[in-house]
Amino acid sequence: MSARGHTLWLTGLSGAGKTTTANALCDVLRRAGAAVVVIDGDALRAGLSSDLGFSAGDRDENVRRAGEIALLLNTQGVVTIVSLISPRTEARRAVRARHIENELSFAEIYLATPLSVCEARDPKALYKRARAGEQQHMTGVDDPYEAPEQAEITVSTELLAPEVLAEDISRRLGLL
Amino acid sequence: MSARGHTLWLTGLSGAGKTTTANALCDVLRRAGAAVVVIDGDALRAGLSSDLGFSAGDRDENVRRAGEIALLLNTQGVVTIVSLISPRTEARRAVRARHIENELSFAEIYLATPLSVCEARDPKALYKRARAGEQQHMTGVDDPYEAPEQAEITVSTELLAPEVLAEDISRRLGLL
Repeated sequence: MSARGHTLWLTGLSGAGKTTTANALCDVLRRAGAAVVVIDGDALRAGLSSDLGFSAGDRDENVRRAGEIALLLNTQGVVTIVSLISPRTEARRAVRARHIENELSFAEIYLATPLSVCEARDPKALYKRARAGEQQHMTGVDDPYEAPEQAEITVSTELLAPEVLAEDISRRLGLL
Repeated sequence: MSARGHTLWLTGLSGAGKTTTANALCDVLRRAGAAVVVIDGDALRAGLSSDLGFSAGDRDENVRRAGEIALLLNTQGVVTIVSLISPRTEARRAVRARHIENELSFAEIYLATPLSVCEARDPKALYKRARAGEQQHMTGVDDPYEAPEQAEITVSTELLAPEVLAEDISRRLGLL
């Protein structure tokens, strides 16, 4: 296990490349010898947060839970990569505050892929369904996304291959 | 990271030795090269489950959350040691079922330390407070504890040093 934990918080729209980047980061950091866990939004929704919906309050609670798991793992020397739309600034700020109050390393990584690109990718056909009125609470369509103003790292996933991006992020955070 | 995850679920009364055994197991398994995380009841209550009380429903929800975190970590090759009173058979059974349906390794370890011994230890003075009527919902005093009938391992913490017990448990589960 790595002696020191870190929380890498990936935020961005659906289709921004969070899961792909999270998995690439996981590979890079494991190869470097770290104990790494990925907390992915879809996995959370299927398990821990299966009792939650998509109201602002429920989204905040989902973010809080992901943050508390990250905190728990970070404390034990695990590099925890959270991959979650986490659309609300205040909820992300609260997670950061919990890390600071526990003297744990936290970095917000904003995947600033434009909505038009995310919508063209549409890996789960969610935008298509939202535009057709078949899906509500779609972030970027009928639900707001509050972009981070002070993310440690802001990246676009359009220009670089995931492995290259993951190495770049890891180096900039001093993890490689 | 270990290639294969495991969930080791430590259940028993307050003072039964769950935290001590969990930490000893963590040390033994980390020394053997595994990625290990401990999910401790007190840490859960201070963070992820700070919104929950001690009603049967809230206790079940606390157990469900610990189970879902274990599942998430186990899937990623982490040995996850849960240390939680988890007094209700049905809630523990549900966690086991979730692991089985996801084809993940799960072992229930019952710390069968007698109530009289737990109460004599009383590390957090909770029994004293409960007997004085200052604390409600104390498992073993005014809240029931349903002992496992089919735990993979049942141990007493009275006879062996924690490190010896941890090694013994690890060997019996094929983890060493």
